[in-house]
Amino acid sequence: MEPQCSSTKTELRRHPERGSHETEVIHAILDEALICHVGFVHDGFPVVIPTIHARSGDTLYLHGSPASRMLRDLAAGVEVSVNATIVDGLVLAKSWFHHSLNYRSVVIFGTASTVTDDEQKGAALRAIVEHVKPGRTAEARPPNAKELAGTLVLALPLTEASAKIRTGGPVDDDADADHPAWTGVLPLSSRGGAG
Amino acid sequence: MEPQCSSTKTELRRHPERGSHETEVIHAILDEALICHVGFVHDGFPVVIPTIHARSGDTLYLHGSPASRMLRDLAAGVEVSVNATIVDGLVLAKSWFHHSLNYRSVVIFGTASTVTDDEQKGAALRAIVEHVKPGRTAEARPPNAKELAGTLVLALPLTEASAKIRTGGPVDDDADADHPAWTGVLPLSSRGGAG
Repeated sequence: MEPQCSSTKTELRRHPERGSHETEVIHAILDEALICHVGFVHDGFPVVIPTIHARSGDTLYLHGSPASRMLRDLAAGVEVSVNATIVDGLVLAKSWFHHSLNYRSVVIFGTASTVTDDEQKGAALRAIVEHVKPGRTAEARPPNAKELAGTLVLALPLTEASAKIRTGGPVDDDADADHPAWTGVLPLSSRGGAG
Repeated sequence: MEPQCSSTKTELRRHPERGSHETEVIHAILDEALICHVGFVHDGFPVVIPTIHARSGDTLYLHGSPASRMLRDLAAGVEVSVNATIVDGLVLAKSWFHHSLNYRSVVIFGTASTVTDDEQKGAALRAIVEHVKPGRTAEARPPNAKELAGTLVLALPLTEASAKIRTGGPVDDDADADHPAWTGVLPLSSRGGAG
């Protein structure tokens, strides 16, 4: 598959062999990661806020209170960087130096815009609830007009996005082959039993 | 207990009842969270990078390759924001609107400095390996001089840090009491079986 979306910002400088610009890979990571971390510049200093998201098509949706500083800054058009990371395992090597994590990570750069259309807004909120717990929108009560008006929904296009992935076991030095430590990968499950 | 570290940056605007500046609370979250997200400003745009950390005393240690853009920017003294978040559960409510997450989150602001003393550097790397897998430093081989020189370690003081925590079940509207949806908290375990 060919790269779908890239830029100098999403160019991978470290471990480029771990990188991917494939849409399917990026979408799958965003769909599996329960939360993401949103970075923006406020009064000249960087701020990082964790939040729930949902992807629908080529758009990442964020939501929250209209009083949220993060959402208000983003709605005003400041540049944003989003990272969603799933840690898949602890990579235990012969040496401290070669210890690592297996992970799947997506980074997005762009500017978000406010979703004003009520139908699109409702669809975004549906996607967010389904993201957290598939099937839940059919059980719980959908938002009424007051709740819809009391929720700010932002859309961030996935035009500048890339994935970075590490898989596999430790890469040890040959000189450490006889060191007695057990090596391998201890798997982690980010969503626990509630995915 | 009294607040230990705070500033206007770490003042909680949204849901201040969820906030804490208590050192013990902040330390416990940093110790349990496997990774953190580091935010900084590069060429005017925000960047968010996930990384392993370790806390020792009132210091957060970060490490990596001396070629890492993030570490080089941070070592140069740019302002940094770090967020470490543990998601404890999915909060399922009667209405979409009142769905939430239970979480424990720490935010840190400050500037990092390079650890140049080899003894402190070794201790920081020990803390990082122990953070990932307690007991592991006794099994695996410690860094040699070349590996130590090939690792950049940064120290970020926890002087400007705060925690934000949500616990408990959903807070539903009285009007939704008869809605048939099951409500409650589905617990998550971030570290899976490998903690």
